[in-house]
Amino acid sequence: MGRITSRHKVVRIDLDHGVTTRAEVAAVEEPLEIRVDDEVLTVTMRTPGHDVELAHGLLQAEGIIRRREDVLIARYCADTELMNVLQLQLRDRAGVPATAQRSLISHGGCGLCGKTSIDAVTASPAYDAAAAVSSLRVPAERIAALPDLLRAGQTVFDKTGGVHAAGLFELQGDALVIREDIGRHNAVDKITGWALLQERATTETIAMVSSRASFEIVQKVAMAGIPVLACVSAPSSLAIEAAERLGVTLVAYTRGRRMTVCSHSERILPP
Amino acid sequence: MGRITSRHKVVRIDLDHGVTTRAEVAAVEEPLEIRVDDEVLTVTMRTPGHDVELAHGLLQAEGIIRRREDVLIARYCADTELMNVLQLQLRDRAGVPATAQRSLISHGGCGLCGKTSIDAVTASPAYDAAAAVSSLRVPAERIAALPDLLRAGQTVFDKTGGVHAAGLFELQGDALVIREDIGRHNAVDKITGWALLQERATTETIAMVSSRASFEIVQKVAMAGIPVLACVSAPSSLAIEAAERLGVTLVAYTRGRRMTVCSHSERILPP
Repeated sequence: MGRITSRHKVVRIDLDHGVTTRAEVAAVEEPLEIRVDDEVLTVTMRTPGHDVELAHGLLQAEGIIRRREDVLIARYCADTELMNVLQLQLRDRAGVPATAQRSLISHGGCGLCGKTSIDAVTASPAYDAAAAVSSLRVPAERIAALPDLLRAGQTVFDKTGGVHAAGLFELQGDALVIREDIGRHNAVDKITGWALLQERATTETIAMVSSRASFEIVQKVAMAGIPVLACVSAPSSLAIEAAERLGVTLVAYTRGRRMTVCSHSERILPP
Repeated sequence: MGRITSRHKVVRIDLDHGVTTRAEVAAVEEPLEIRVDDEVLTVTMRTPGHDVELAHGLLQAEGIIRRREDVLIARYCADTELMNVLQLQLRDRAGVPATAQRSLISHGGCGLCGKTSIDAVTASPAYDAAAAVSSLRVPAERIAALPDLLRAGQTVFDKTGGVHAAGLFELQGDALVIREDIGRHNAVDKITGWALLQERATTETIAMVSSRASFEIVQKVAMAGIPVLACVSAPSSLAIEAAERLGVTLVAYTRGRRMTVCSHSERILPP
């Protein structure tokens, strides 16, 4: 454990210049089992490291916890040398769903739709409406600077090209935390979990992800009370609808000196 | 339902050329609830369409079914106009896990590691070892041609830039099926589900994905008996290890006239 890259013998074929054998660096992917009070909540494939942050972020996004004190103990299972089983003990089990289900807080019966998914976020007792009411205003130039700052923080994985990054930034553009993971959801859980563990107020912060924006990314950001989410690539329809409803400013296609503001554009100040 | 793209009013900011308001096309993301014999197996966020294929591919990958006849009935829930709840009735419930858990067939207790995950695939009664023993040989030129063929099949989503594609190809390079989805796992489930529903032999086929290769993508391909998996981007460490152990030839970084063969390179014939 602890390795975040590994080397593998591979064969490179160049149709014009022939075949070479070499060692290729790959991002490590390992399962993490998260247990809550001795029951398996979920197993997620992730890049090892910052697992406690990941678990806190995930539990916050699923509506199970909302602050640091809600988790009494977080430790790796002692029965193994592998650090792939994390045991959490909660102060109050009330928020734990009967059948733990990854990826959606809850859902209605027949008639399940995107609106149901968005409603489930606002109905969650752990939903932090701080994002919706934040009066943060951000110059567009600051947003345009974030992709380079995010990349600058990606020291380890530059060479693999196979991981996603998420960062939490102050209004002035300073990075509070940058995390990398083979799963884009995990990278976001690691930054929101970091903020929860640090008890860091999020109403004046901006989240940036190196990937596309899906519903779940917007959900995690809203549950953490972060008012602005920027992404490098495309948003899904439900990500836009959720951001609109949950009061999150969603900025997509943040590339070079251009960006597309998909919701709550009042927070972004044009030049 | 049925819409696979939607339009959203957005604000485009160009730091050098000003602000414009326009309608942006986004890929639709909606939840799909899959019920097996009236119990919720999972909820997955997906692009609507080809949901029956998706469910068949997912159940095959999870080891719950292995052939078309294992599913007696597959239909949308009649209580709603939304086509987001799919009900399946199985011939034999033996393979359904007690607590349905997305993303891993099964896992041991303490000591969970990548090897446990790979072992779970080979131990599954539905595991199709056909991939491992396939004597398929593919000229490297054929692999190099796949990304363009995959893109050529992506007619609908060209404009959104926000979806993944997966395709199943014959040795000669003809596309058997190409599917697109906001989730790369879903796109793979749709092509393996298609093959299962068509009762199409897979031992002489090649799968290609527009994304990175993770453990779960390799798992799905191996469970479907497909011997060669090509991807445009990077593989994870566990994807490489799983491909090696499960007898799948994994080709990564398939770009232009170059590619990197990460496992079972004997199947790829250099020029």
